[in-house]
This record gives sequence, C-alpha cells and structure tokens, in this order.
Amino acid sequence: MADFVTAPELRLSRRALLAGGQPISALMAQALENPDLISLAAGFVDNETLPVDVVSEVLRELNSDPQEARRALQYGTTAGLPRLRAALLSRLRHQSDSTASIDQVVITAGSNQLLHLVAETLLDPGDVVLCAAPTYFVFLGTLANVHARARSVATDEHGMIPKALEQEFRRFENRGELGRIKAIYLVPYFDNPSSITMPLDRIAAIVEAAQRWSTQTRIHVICDEAYRDLRYAGEDVPSARTVDPDGETVVVAGTFSKSFSPGIRVGWGVLPPHLVDPVLDQKGNIDFGSPNLNQYLMASVLEGGLLDPHIARLRTNYRKKLTAMLAAADEHLAPIAGVRWQRPTGGLYVWARLPEGMETSTERELFKRAVDEGVLYVPGEYCYAPEGVAVEKNTMRLSFGVQSCPRINEGIQALANAICAVGASGG
Amino acid sequence: MADFVTAPELRLSRRALLAGGQPISALMAQALENPDLISLAAGFVDNETLPVDVVSEVLRELNSDPQEARRALQYGTTAGLPRLRAALLSRLRHQSDSTASIDQVVITAGSNQLLHLVAETLLDPGDVVLCAAPTYFVFLGTLANVHARARSVATDEHGMIPKALEQEFRRFENRGELGRIKAIYLVPYFDNPSSITMPLDRIAAIVEAAQRWSTQTRIHVICDEAYRDLRYAGEDVPSARTVDPDGETVVVAGTFSKSFSPGIRVGWGVLPPHLVDPVLDQKGNIDFGSPNLNQYLMASVLEGGLLDPHIARLRTNYRKKLTAMLAAADEHLAPIAGVRWQRPTGGLYVWARLPEGMETSTERELFKRAVDEGVLYVPGEYCYAPEGVAVEKNTMRLSFGVQSCPRINEGIQALANAICAVGASGG
Repeated sequence: MADFVTAPELRLSRRALLAGGQPISALMAQALENPDLISLAAGFVDNETLPVDVVSEVLRELNSDPQEARRALQYGTTAGLPRLRAALLSRLRHQSDSTASIDQVVITAGSNQLLHLVAETLLDPGDVVLCAAPTYFVFLGTLANVHARARSVATDEHGMIPKALEQEFRRFENRGELGRIKAIYLVPYFDNPSSITMPLDRIAAIVEAAQRWSTQTRIHVICDEAYRDLRYAGEDVPSARTVDPDGETVVVAGTFSKSFSPGIRVGWGVLPPHLVDPVLDQKGNIDFGSPNLNQYLMASVLEGGLLDPHIARLRTNYRKKLTAMLAAADEHLAPIAGVRWQRPTGGLYVWARLPEGMETSTERELFKRAVDEGVLYVPGEYCYAPEGVAVEKNTMRLSFGVQSCPRINEGIQALANAICAVGASGG
Repeated sequence: MADFVTAPELRLSRRALLAGGQPISALMAQALENPDLISLAAGFVDNETLPVDVVSEVLRELNSDPQEARRALQYGTTAGLPRLRAALLSRLRHQSDSTASIDQVVITAGSNQLLHLVAETLLDPGDVVLCAAPTYFVFLGTLANVHARARSVATDEHGMIPKALEQEFRRFENRGELGRIKAIYLVPYFDNPSSITMPLDRIAAIVEAAQRWSTQTRIHVICDEAYRDLRYAGEDVPSARTVDPDGETVVVAGTFSKSFSPGIRVGWGVLPPHLVDPVLDQKGNIDFGSPNLNQYLMASVLEGGLLDPHIARLRTNYRKKLTAMLAAADEHLAPIAGVRWQRPTGGLYVWARLPEGMETSTERELFKRAVDEGVLYVPGEYCYAPEGVAVEKNTMRLSFGVQSCPRINEGIQALANAICAVGASGG
C-alpha cells in the first residue's frame, strides 16, 4: 500500500526514551522462567494470607442488593467513592491523623498511582527530589520518567539524616539551585528496601527543614506509608501529618495492597488542600476515577470492621516469616565475615550488606552463583538515586513475604553458599 | 514551627498548569446539585442494564475456588492477565482482526488509560495530533495535558475527510513542520460526540495517507473503538487493523466499560509491535498493571460466553432509548427552523445543530434557559480541538444512555422550549 515508503522513523517522546523498564521486571521474568528458584526478590504479599473469605462474603453481600451493586458497576467520581473516603479518614483519624478533611482524600490505583500523580503535578524536567539512600526503586523509575533528578541523602538507622539533608539544601543554595528542590521522598514505616522506621522526631526535623528551606518554592515531603500496617512488634508511630500542623507540607500516600490485597489495588493520598485540584486534574485526564467496584468492596471491608482482624492475621503470619529469615541469617550468614543485616520489626524486607567489594549486580558473579544455587534477590544498587550518596554495590534486598518458612531457610542457605563460593574465588 | 517563612510560593509543574479540569466536571456537579434536572449530558451507561447477575455469578464461582481467588487478589503483570488477553484476542479475531498476537494486547484501566499511555509514549510538547471535528473531548484534555497540539480536520457524514486530511499534511509540509504530526485520532464506531461510523474505505484512505506521509516520522492512526459493540442496526465494520496489513500504523483502544461495566473499568490496546515495550514502560512506572481481580472477572465473563448475550440485552435497551430520543426530536425539535440532528445507528449520543448564531456554551442564554426548563446537555464547543476547523458553537451532544424513555422525551421537550424561548428573544 505504501511500499514506496521505506521504514519511516519511529520517533518516541522524550519521556518514552527516558523511561526504561523497571529493573525488577527482568528479575520477575527470571523467576517465572525458573519456577524452582526461591525468589526472595519479589515484593509480592503472601498468597496464603490473601483475604478470599472476606472478599467473597463482602461481594456476595454487595451483589445481594441489586441497586447498590449497580452503583458499584457504574462510573464513579475522579476523587473516589465518598463512602470509602469517609471510612478511610475515620481509620486514619483513629491511628493518629485528626486534622485531614474528606476533601483532601483522593482514591487511586494503589499508592503508586498517587506517587505518579504527585510527581506529574509538582515536577518539571530537572527538578530535584531528595530521597533516602537506599530508597524505593519503583519511585526512582517514576522520577526518571518525568526527567526529574532524584538525589539521595545519607541515612542512618533512623532514616534520612537531618544534618545531611541540611548540607544538601545548603549545597543547592550555594549553586543558586535551591528553587529546583521540589520535594523530599520518605518511606517512614518499614522502608522499602531498608525496613527502617523513622521516629517521629526525625520526621519532624525533616518536615521543619522542608518548611524552613521553602524560601524559593514550596518543598513538599511525600510520605509513602504503604507498609504502615505491617508492624510485628512495638507501637505505631504517628503519621508525618501530625508534625505538619497547617497541613501544607506533607503528602501522604497509602494503600490496601499490602495490608489487604494488591489484586484489588486501591490506594489513596491525603493531600495538602492546594494540591487536591491539580492532582485530580491529572487523574481526570488519565482515568477519571479508579474502578468503582473495587472502591465499594474496600468501603464495605472498612465499614464492616473486617480490615483490622485481617491485618492481625497478616501480622501473625509475617512475624513468623520474618523470624524464620532472621534465624536463617543467624545460622547461615552470621558465620561469613563482613555480612550484616537489619533486624526489622515490620514490613516485608531484610536489607543486607555483604563484604566490601562483593557486588550484587545481576552482571556480577554473585548473582549468577545465587541463581545456580537456586535463589533470587534484588540487587541493592537499584535502590539508589543516580545522584548524591555513593551507591553501595554490596547490598541486597531480601523479601520474606512470599516464601514459606522452610523455603526462606533454604533460600538463605543457598545465598550463603553463593556468597562463600564467590568469597573463596576472590570475586 | 516555620513561622518566619511567609507563604512559600507553590510552583506546580508546567504540565499541571496546562491541565485544567475536564470541562464536563462542572456539568456533572450541576447535575448532582439539581437531581431533578434531566441530564442528557453525562456519557454514563444505563444503570438498569448493568450486569449485576452476571458479575455476581462469576465472582461467586471465582471465589469458590480459593486457589484461583487468591491469584486474583495477588499482583499480576504489567501487560495484563494472559487468560484475559487470550480471550479478548479470540473475540477480536472473531470480529475481524485475525493478525494480532497476544503480545500486542495490553490491558489498561479503561480505553482512556491506553489513550493516555500512547499519548505519553508518542508525544513531545508541540507535537500534533489530527482529530475529527468534533471529537472526544476527554482525549483533547489528555493532549492539552502533555502540551501536544490537537488540530481538527473537516468531517462529513462518514467522518474525517481524506481530502481535508491531505490538505493538512500539505500545509504542515509547506511550513516545514510535517515531522511534528505524530498521530491521527479517530473514533471509527459511533463517534463521541457525532455518532458517525466510518466506512472501511474511509478508514483505509486515512491509514494509507498516514503511511504515505510518514516520510519524516512514523504517523500512527489511533482508533478508539470504545463504542464498537453498541450497534443497534446494520452490520459491524471490520477494525482499522484490517486495512493496516503490516500492523505498524494502527493503534486500537477498546474497553468493556460501555459494553459491560464502567465500574470494573477494564480496557485494552492492540498495539503495533514497536509500541508494546514503550507503552508497558510507561504503565510500569504508573501502576505496574491494572487490578488483577477485575481482569479475572472479565476473563471469566469472556470465556463463559457471557459478554455477547449481555450486549444483546444492551442493544435492545439502547435501541429503544435511541428511538425515543429520535421520536422526541421529530416531535419537539423538528418544528423549530434551523435545528438538525444525526440519526445514529449505535453509540450513546445524538449530535444536534441549532440555528446559526444560537450558541450552546454554558455562558450563553440557551444553557441557562435549558437548566431552568430542567435539562442539561454538553455544549458542542468542548468537542473541538483548539486549532483547525472553526468551532461550531451552535452544536450540542445529547446522551440517551442514562434516562428512561419518558424522561428522554421530557428532556427533549424542555430543550425545545429553551430553544424557542431564546429564539424568540433574539438570543
């Protein structure tokens, strides 16, 4: 038909050229191709704990009221189902956050969509987001996609270090670039991948710094609370919103994907009032509202008081798995010189450091050995922003959420074998 | 805490500043505030036809198999559930499209997310998309959001006119801007708002022109097939993919939102192979896959042969409503000089033209009169791209999907009253 045209040039958008795949995709593909591999890589939740009975009962009840069921199958609003937003707000208030209004609550396709919408709303190419080192690699992909600059700030056992943050601000001010810093990204509860939970005074210091340095443009603190409910010991920490009294600095992202079901994929944001309309404008242009059925389902789960009992079951389950992973590490990894790891009290991950110089990248010896031994992990280097603190290439993220306790033990043993083999070979 | 900082300046992204709300939002709000208004504005589907029984039965069956139910509540893949993509592909093949492979099928949150992802993948600021005049206003919002230039091309009763398209290409070539045209956007079946269905030879001419003018960059033809299944008379037209033998020009967007349920919000794309990875990269950065539960649900609906009987029921229902609207128009609008409208054979809309000079905008007399008379419509001017063919300000979109037949008749009568009143006042 158009045979005189020879292969017209495909010109993708700059954004598409910048995207690149999520690095984890290749790992997932590897896990799928080798079903015998023990994947300590995927951040999936435990299949066995997925709330089939609760979902089944709630859907049965929803469908027994044809009028209500029809509403669930119809379009909703861009901001989300008012019933769900009210139930969610009441839960957040009960936890710690007493000041948000329902207008600040927006329902999204998981917390990730909220992070994406906020990135779109705040960031122009070249704008800077300060992150912990290490940080959530999917969000790094989102930032790269909008051509923002992610820059990592030094972290201790309580998360991002205020003094290091202060130095960053000063560095940007000295270069006349302070106005490019648009946000600080934190995962205050059981950070992915480090599993660090930030004490409230640490969060408060960071929020205060964001406000104090907002001389050229308002600097938001984006708090990703995806893992907040997955606590297996100790007391909940109040939300960052409690140290932001006027509510104009902190953006909260949350989700039921980890605490209930990722297949339902309902997340939310609690936004400063000035961001609500801009974020909804973005969402209006993308999907004008998340699927209504899923929102009706989650509203009924919350209103029926079914979430917290489920979370209690989850905690019992994950506590055992975490214990199994730490016990396996004590048994198999502790004897290897230079291997260290966190002992988290929640979340889904153990963050481990190997001897200096033993790189964990998929291109290196260790990764291949680990696969040969039958285990998969996430190389830690994916979790560092391209700028800022140096990447620690001898780190890895180990997930305990998916595998059974015996498989966790086997996986850690396989990993220890791989580390020893590489160590012995001087790799 | 930071009281020495006086109101730091909020700097939104350029994209956020360009977004603006969807114009329809204000109309929706008006409808919600005045529940007695007969809204012929919203493009919702008929509440009464929503498939409560089918959904209820499929979910009951899904939940009766705990292993399968758990899979539905777990994360899926970015491209979507293979079972659903296979079932969908088999349906598309049955309809007309025999050449696509499963790798080209991507599941999205409605067809809108697919349109958004393709826009992100192809368009840089200033790039041009050629649209029909009028065209789907939500997509115009998406294009404005990525700062692309939407430009409308003249349309006759068969849709976009190839000769007019040719002139556009030549105009851009003469200005040295041909390389900025990245896509042509068509709604080939029961276009929103015009309800025009394009004959295949018209589509073929446009696909051929896109290929022939792809000398500087590949020009895609994005075919939004959202309304394809809502046909109340005549035969289905083969998909645009059938006139794109190498499959490298046409992008198809589809959805079950209109043919089954918008609250489940499962849509899809059939992409040229070279766009699959770039589109999935975008989706990976936004939500890494649409909700799995909804995909399992739709897979079972398709595999169980439950979609087509539902569509048959839908057609019977909408056919009556369309007939009611056309009868009401014949009764109440025909006597008014200068009022004309389409007689569609499918879709959800009747597109009407009023006497020259009688503007339908929400700022004008007619709109206020119509609201006083108790009826709401979508002003046609929202449906024109900002460049190209002149906006016809005396047009409106009337939806027959939501209201009952008597309410449709009442609504058209109210509209006729408003038109007469404004005509009499010389407005």
